[in-house]
Amino acid sequence: MTIQRITIVGTGLIGGSAGLALHAAQFPGEVIGWDRSASQSGIALDRGAIDVIALDPINAAVSSDLVLLSGPVFAIQDWMEKLAPLLRPHQLVTDVGSVKVAIAERAKPLYGGPHQPGFLPGHPMAGKEVSGAANADAQLFLNAVWLFTEFAHHPLAAEWRAWVERFGCRTMDIQAGRHDEICAWVSHLPQFLSTALSAMLEDRFGNAPDLRAIGGRALREMTRLGASPYSMWRDVAHTNQEAISEALLAMEQRLAHLRENLKTPELRDEFERANRFRAN
Amino acid sequence: MTIQRITIVGTGLIGGSAGLALHAAQFPGEVIGWDRSASQSGIALDRGAIDVIALDPINAAVSSDLVLLSGPVFAIQDWMEKLAPLLRPHQLVTDVGSVKVAIAERAKPLYGGPHQPGFLPGHPMAGKEVSGAANADAQLFLNAVWLFTEFAHHPLAAEWRAWVERFGCRTMDIQAGRHDEICAWVSHLPQFLSTALSAMLEDRFGNAPDLRAIGGRALREMTRLGASPYSMWRDVAHTNQEAISEALLAMEQRLAHLRENLKTPELRDEFERANRFRAN
Repeated sequence: MTIQRITIVGTGLIGGSAGLALHAAQFPGEVIGWDRSASQSGIALDRGAIDVIALDPINAAVSSDLVLLSGPVFAIQDWMEKLAPLLRPHQLVTDVGSVKVAIAERAKPLYGGPHQPGFLPGHPMAGKEVSGAANADAQLFLNAVWLFTEFAHHPLAAEWRAWVERFGCRTMDIQAGRHDEICAWVSHLPQFLSTALSAMLEDRFGNAPDLRAIGGRALREMTRLGASPYSMWRDVAHTNQEAISEALLAMEQRLAHLRENLKTPELRDEFERANRFRAN
Repeated sequence: MTIQRITIVGTGLIGGSAGLALHAAQFPGEVIGWDRSASQSGIALDRGAIDVIALDPINAAVSSDLVLLSGPVFAIQDWMEKLAPLLRPHQLVTDVGSVKVAIAERAKPLYGGPHQPGFLPGHPMAGKEVSGAANADAQLFLNAVWLFTEFAHHPLAAEWRAWVERFGCRTMDIQAGRHDEICAWVSHLPQFLSTALSAMLEDRFGNAPDLRAIGGRALREMTRLGASPYSMWRDVAHTNQEAISEALLAMEQRLAHLRENLKTPELRDEFERANRFRAN
């Protein structure tokens, strides 16, 4: 084992969960944590997600074998730029960003060259609608898929992937462009649908008593992601706008089609297609 | 207690669950069941949802104090018409139909008059995406709301409502038109959204391996209702078309608005509205 010391930059929901999962998987080394919010790193420490709080994240990163960047995409990109000139080729930086082309483009000139540190773009397909270290969970990644997109090979990459698998994840390789396209449809679209539905119901019914009680489980599920934070999704909307726009437009057209066919046999066909999707 | 004998017409998911809940609540009388599918009534009997299968549902209804009509709206309406001329004023018919104006209109000339049986329009806000007696569950109504809409008063109504409360439900009165409007937004719209999303992903990605694994929990939740049966939702679409069309159109416009604002501050406002809806 050559990964002895890990620095987690961003000890919120995902970074904190990675720390908890590392400890649950009996990572024998040291996990250092830092968050721009001192309360987040404090909670992460209290909960045992990290062993120590970094006073200076740069120093911590420079003295680590692996740096895990966790947070919104723009924050990850900022840290990629800050750290690249300070790290050396034996060190590996990896991330958990929701969009991968923008990350790979930023990494290209900074990482993976002869005198540059390594980079491994990653994305665990797991999360919650609530953020923060208080909601971190060692089991968050259980049975989830942790995606990796292609980048220059680094000696520590296989070892980090092995840790991720010990979190209960299945690892999978995917091309960065394909990642962003698929995620636009199966992750970003569901998020924006849930946000739009929640916001619309808020405007229309506001505090109408009993509305949520009447709606029951279907409403709860379909609006759960409405609680997701803007801070995280702003960066996704910015960095994957084209694919998300395409998915949203397709959804608008699909709803119009369904609306125009509420009383025609096409409604049956649509239900049958939906049933097939769920049966597979 | 004057409800001694209950006939459940339609012993699928909801009718079967009502039978199981009656038994779990120690209903001391007899529960007779019938379903147009003999296998459904057989499963309901095997699972203890009903005490006996009615060979002739008309005879069973005529000899019962209360008749529970369960199934798609059009099937409920058919049974309302069949039974009304055969039942007497001391008998009460109640239903679980998802749309209430169409049910109330059908009931008006047939029930509640001086020589007519009673009628109590009801709608438990509980369900599953899978149908059938095999999926029936005595706990299905736990913590759910069972809505009732206004109709001519009947002596047995209070007793049936008391049983429903013993299922773990909260009962609530609502005007039929308001019921159909609210349900269009918080129940029917979520269903059609999930169907459209599932059908669209089926068309676009079909059997693409790993798509569902990549999507994770958000995708699973947002498409769960995609498994719902057309047979049930066709009648909802027919009998509440106007309100559902309005809700779908509003959703299309909301998605277009969000799509046009992926990079503007309006996205923040939309997330904040959605957050407020979930916080209430």
